Amino acid sequence: MTTQLTLIQIDNYGPWTVTPEPRREMDLQTLQSRLFADIAQFVGSRGGYVFFSRFDNMIAVTNGIGRAGHKSLQESVRNRYPVTVSLGIGTAETPAAALDAATEQIQAAGSAQDKSRTEVLAGEPLDGDADATTHMAHFDVNDATGKYTDQLNEFDSFIHIERSYASLMEYMREAHGALSFFVGGDNIIAVCPELPTNAYQDAIDHVEDDVGVELKVGVGRGATAHDAGYDAKHALEDCRYEGTAVEFEYPQAATGDD
Amino acid sequence: MTTQLTLIQIDNYGPWTVTPEPRREMDLQTLQSRLFADIAQFVGSRGGYVFFSRFDNMIAVTNGIGRAGHKSLQESVRNRYPVTVSLGIGTAETPAAALDAATEQIQAAGSAQDKSRTEVLAGEPLDGDADATTHMAHFDVNDATGKYTDQLNEFDSFIHIERSYASLMEYMREAHGALSFFVGGDNIIAVCPELPTNAYQDAIDHVEDDVGVELKVGVGRGATAHDAGYDAKHALEDCRYEGTAVEFEYPQAATGDD
Amino acid sequence: MTTQLTLIQIDNYGPWTVTPEPRREMDLQTLQSRLFADIAQFVGSRGGYVFFSRFDNMIAVTNGIGRAGHKSLQESVRNRYPVTVSLGIGTAETPAAALDAATEQIQAAGSAQDKSRTEVLAGEPLDGDADATTHMAHFDVNDATGKYTDQLNEFDSFIHIERSYASLMEYMREAHGALSFFVGGDNIIAVCPELPTNAYQDAIDHVEDDVGVELKVGVGRGATAHDAGYDAKHALEDCRYEGTAVEFEYPQAATGDD
Amino acid sequence: MTTQLTLIQIDNYGPWTVTPEPRREMDLQTLQSRLFADIAQFVGSRGGYVFFSRFDNMIAVTNGIGRAGHKSLQESVRNRYPVTVSLGIGTAETPAAALDAATEQIQAAGSAQDKSRTEVLAGEPLDGDADATTHMAHFDVNDATGKYTDQLNEFDSFIHIERSYASLMEYMREAHGALSFFVGGDNIIAVCPELPTNAYQDAIDHVEDDVGVELKVGVGRGATAHDAGYDAKHALEDCRYEGTAVEFEYPQAATGDD
Ligand SMILES: Nc1nc2c(ncn2[C@@H]2O[C@H](COP(=O)(O)OP(=O)(O)OP(=O)(O)O)[C@@H](O)[C@H]2O)c(=O)[nH]1
Ligand SMILES: Nc1nc2c(ncn2[C@@H]2O[C@H](COP(=O)(O)OP(=O)(O)OP(=O)(O)O)[C@@H](O)[C@H]2O)c(=O)[nH]1
Ligand SMILES: Nc1nc2c(ncn2[C@@H]2O[C@H](COP(=O)(O)OP(=O)(O)OP(=O)(O)O)[C@@H](O)[C@H]2O)c(=O)[nH]1
Ligand SMILES: Nc1nc2c(ncn2[C@@H]2O[C@H](COP(=O)(O)OP(=O)(O)OP(=O)(O)O)[C@@H](O)[C@H]2O)c(=O)[nH]1
Ligand SMILES: [Ca+2]
Ligand SMILES: [Ca+2]
Ligand SMILES: [Ca+2]
Ligand SMILES: [Ca+2]
Repeated sequence: MTTQLTLIQIDNYGPWTVTPEPRREMDLQTLQSRLFADIAQFVGSRGGYVFFSRFDNMIAVTNGIGRAGHKSLQESVRNRYPVTVSLGIGTAETPAAALDAATEQIQAAGSAQDKSRTEVLAGEPLDGDADATTHMAHFDVNDATGKYTDQLNEFDSFIHIERSYASLMEYMREAHGALSFFVGGDNIIAVCPELPTNAYQDAIDHVEDDVGVELKVGVGRGATAHDAGYDAKHALEDCRYEGTAVEFEYPQAATGDD
Repeated sequence: MTTQLTLIQIDNYGPWTVTPEPRREMDLQTLQSRLFADIAQFVGSRGGYVFFSRFDNMIAVTNGIGRAGHKSLQESVRNRYPVTVSLGIGTAETPAAALDAATEQIQAAGSAQDKSRTEVLAGEPLDGDADATTHMAHFDVNDATGKYTDQLNEFDSFIHIERSYASLMEYMREAHGALSFFVGGDNIIAVCPELPTNAYQDAIDHVEDDVGVELKVGVGRGATAHDAGYDAKHALEDCRYEGTAVEFEYPQAATGDD
Repeated sequence: MTTQLTLIQIDNYGPWTVTPEPRREMDLQTLQSRLFADIAQFVGSRGGYVFFSRFDNMIAVTNGIGRAGHKSLQESVRNRYPVTVSLGIGTAETPAAALDAATEQIQAAGSAQDKSRTEVLAGEPLDGDADATTHMAHFDVNDATGKYTDQLNEFDSFIHIERSYASLMEYMREAHGALSFFVGGDNIIAVCPELPTNAYQDAIDHVEDDVGVELKVGVGRGATAHDAGYDAKHALEDCRYEGTAVEFEYPQAATGDD
Repeated sequence: MTTQLTLIQIDNYGPWTVTPEPRREMDLQTLQSRLFADIAQFVGSRGGYVFFSRFDNMIAVTNGIGRAGHKSLQESVRNRYPVTVSLGIGTAETPAAALDAATEQIQAAGSAQDKSRTEVLAGEPLDGDADATTHMAHFDVNDATGKYTDQLNEFDSFIHIERSYASLMEYMREAHGALSFFVGGDNIIAVCPELPTNAYQDAIDHVEDDVGVELKVGVGRGATAHDAGYDAKHALEDCRYEGTAVEFEYPQAATGDD
């Protein structure tokens, strides 16, 4: 069971945003979100997932995408944007360890704000026969519409969602080396190692105790992020129909609940 | 001094994402970020700002954009996306109060997941002669590249940024009715009421005490979000050159520091 | 009755496409069509029209958009694309004469492939009180679906449409100084001076004699391209319902047919 | 030597453009050009080429893209646009015959304006072992900048380019079953069967005699459209350096000129 992660870092972006003058914020927002969208289409149509995280640094699950695919992503960005991107690839048993490796590849080549460090492509993708299996958990707030969106002003709704995200991301990182990303609305997707039902239940309990927000989660696994993530979505629908808090799309061992 | 905010809510989006089957996550991410980018261009080229916040609900500063402009945004979305948007407009002295008003306009017309509630356009824009003045504060982490990006794995860098954001957003909301948004990298932009230097210094101190992240902030004001925000960016550059923590682009009263 | 046209020219684009190596064609196609789409949104949301024509040179009807608007378009392109654009503005009674003026503005500043000529902004927009009136004619092939799309292979359908376009564009240019643009499907939109019904009938007859393709046309006029063009679309719907070849959305003098 | 072509047809697009009211032309232009751009990225990153042709019907060279790839393109369009697309796949020795087959697949399933015909996916892709070889010819006008762009008003420049395109497209179609597409600027790309040097020289002579525009052409071949097209671009650069009219990137038989 190994996951392949890619760190995507815009080269020397900080200085670019203020040279020769600060650039219009709405143009930067447009640039960032379209770059993310393009990468989402590129990676997504090859079975991967990418998360915007900080936008100048994005994290992708890229099982099955080799060096040639990564290179062609760099070329396509260079041909259409005023910025370029460096890519670091890492593989390991846990997502956090894979990201360590991916990040080090880029850091070893120079600073994010090093003018002469551009379009790094470093790290080794999994080879074709490797047993790549990814686990994805799709968390979602219970009745976010009824409790928040339709009740509070939108910023206060957002504060609740944000709190649950902050709480969950730290817990999953610490407890399991899992990487959790807010994906909009009331949804959080976590790239996880293999975990039993009670680990997910504990995470949900933690968030409820910590910030008072109730989550449910669907879990899937697969050879690619999409396969695992899509199963997770189906499992989440099972939570909705069953009124349960944790569902797996695949058979669980002893501790499994479905 | 009055700010005009618009709440942009995708109509009945939750059900759409899972009908007839869950949709591919990377397609949803693409849809959301491109919709945001299009609104950023629309609003931005009219002097406004929009923040992605939860993507299914976005918050915009729209001083100077009237009903006709709002209507034409709705039409353009409807003509090019598989979803529609409702818009609620609110005006008030503090940003939080303006957003209360904006949100209530939409809530009064039905639930975010009400199938028959589409393309609400409610609330009154400021009239042309109104004295619209917006204050924008542009916060930024000191040496984020040296301390985080070039040192930690990217998720752990992100955790630090995220913590500072969670801490600042709650503080500014509580203390001043200000609305703070993460805009990528290590940057947070806050829509604020008029505040003295020490209020900003206290916010920065609070975040440092709370989560150990050092911020600086540039503050601007203007008739539109862009005018105020652009001045804030210049003030932030002043912080960089002067090594200071708080700079205003406009003359401060008694308590001012520049 | 005066029309304002803007020529939008990508600066030094030919050399860029092959430096340092020829760029992937699909990346160039993406760049060009997205740049066009962004300009269509910018200009379109201000009541204007833009036509892709050669993509590296685009022609826009910009009544009502002043220097500041043009400047902000240039800034937005520069901030988000790897290329920049020069803009020439021209105004005159006939569209062809307005485009002469617009083109000369850019040519006077240097060659399209002059490395040092970037972001020209030249020519005077109409001032606010000027009586800007634009006439737009929306031509469409009769039963293109039944005669071509559902019968021939797609390239052969396209040849018929292309022939009708080549024939119409030259005729309208010569006879009336009108500028006709293919806008996809079986549609051609012409920016025209004021013309009587029989002028449009003659154009349609010419195309049928010349290349055997049957057209109909709706004509509108208005202060902006959108106002005129939208009326033209309604007039075209009238042709569909009435089975006529030429319809005006506004009352015609002596020679009018509706 | 076999080419695989895909016809991409927007389902029931004509009626959609005018229901319930005619839609804003600039929104339609944006929709069409972004849909094309997205398909260009999808197909292009898999080695294919797509041409906008009429925008509501686009023609792609899809050697190497199987049914699953086609299906995932349909899904991605459906998830992000207000329209859907049908795809017909055809393979044959000449491009025209391949397009015949591709078009018939879609026509057999119903009219382009049949409300109930959506998301057809018909026709068989080449199987993996098939000897797919595509020939691409990249035509370009000699000194278009000096003779037209810097001299005439932009519409009159465009008329010359358009004439050369109309002349070339018909000639190549008739003489060789080749499909030629205008790709912007002064460039035309033709999907060709295998042809000797003199066939290209004759085409260039024909266009010069017919409409007085001087072309040059680079020819490449490869397993994918990109491989062939990229070689054609290099061959075109050879024309520039050598001052010749026809260059091949690969060794020619007896009649070859390089
Ligand atoms: N990124 C992403 N967001 C989603 C998805 N499904 C729902 N959302 C978001 O979540 C928001 C809330 O939708 P739901 O979770 O269906 O609504 P709810 O009121 O919380 O209802 P329950 O979760 O059924 O209790 C939507 O507006 C979307 O923004 C998904 O698959 N992916
Ligand atoms: N949205 C937005 N992001 C910005 C802007 N300026 C910088 N950033 C982001 O912030 C990141 C870090 O850049 P800087 O703040 O310049 O770098 P730093 O290392 O923290 O250096 P100092 O702030 O100068 O101490 C960049 O990669 C961008 O993502 C801006 O104006 N808008
Ligand atoms: N750009 C643009 N294209 C349009 C518009 N309306 C239709 N089209 C295009 O024209 C194509 C053919 O549609 P129609 O003209 O409605 O169909 P038709 O078979 O020719 O039928 P009639 O014109 O009613 O005889 C569509 O696929 C679209 O590509 C429009 O308003 N703008
Ligand atoms: N689509 C596409 N367009 C191109 C390419 N190269 C050039 N162009 C277009 O062609 C236009 C003219 O560029 P050139 O052909 O280099 O210029 P020219 O003046 O004709 O010079 P020569 O062809 O060298 O005689 C540019 O503005 C582009 O629009 C290409 O590879 N693909
Ligand atoms: Ca939920
Ligand atoms: Ca910083
Ligand atoms: Ca028609
Ligand atoms: Ca040329």
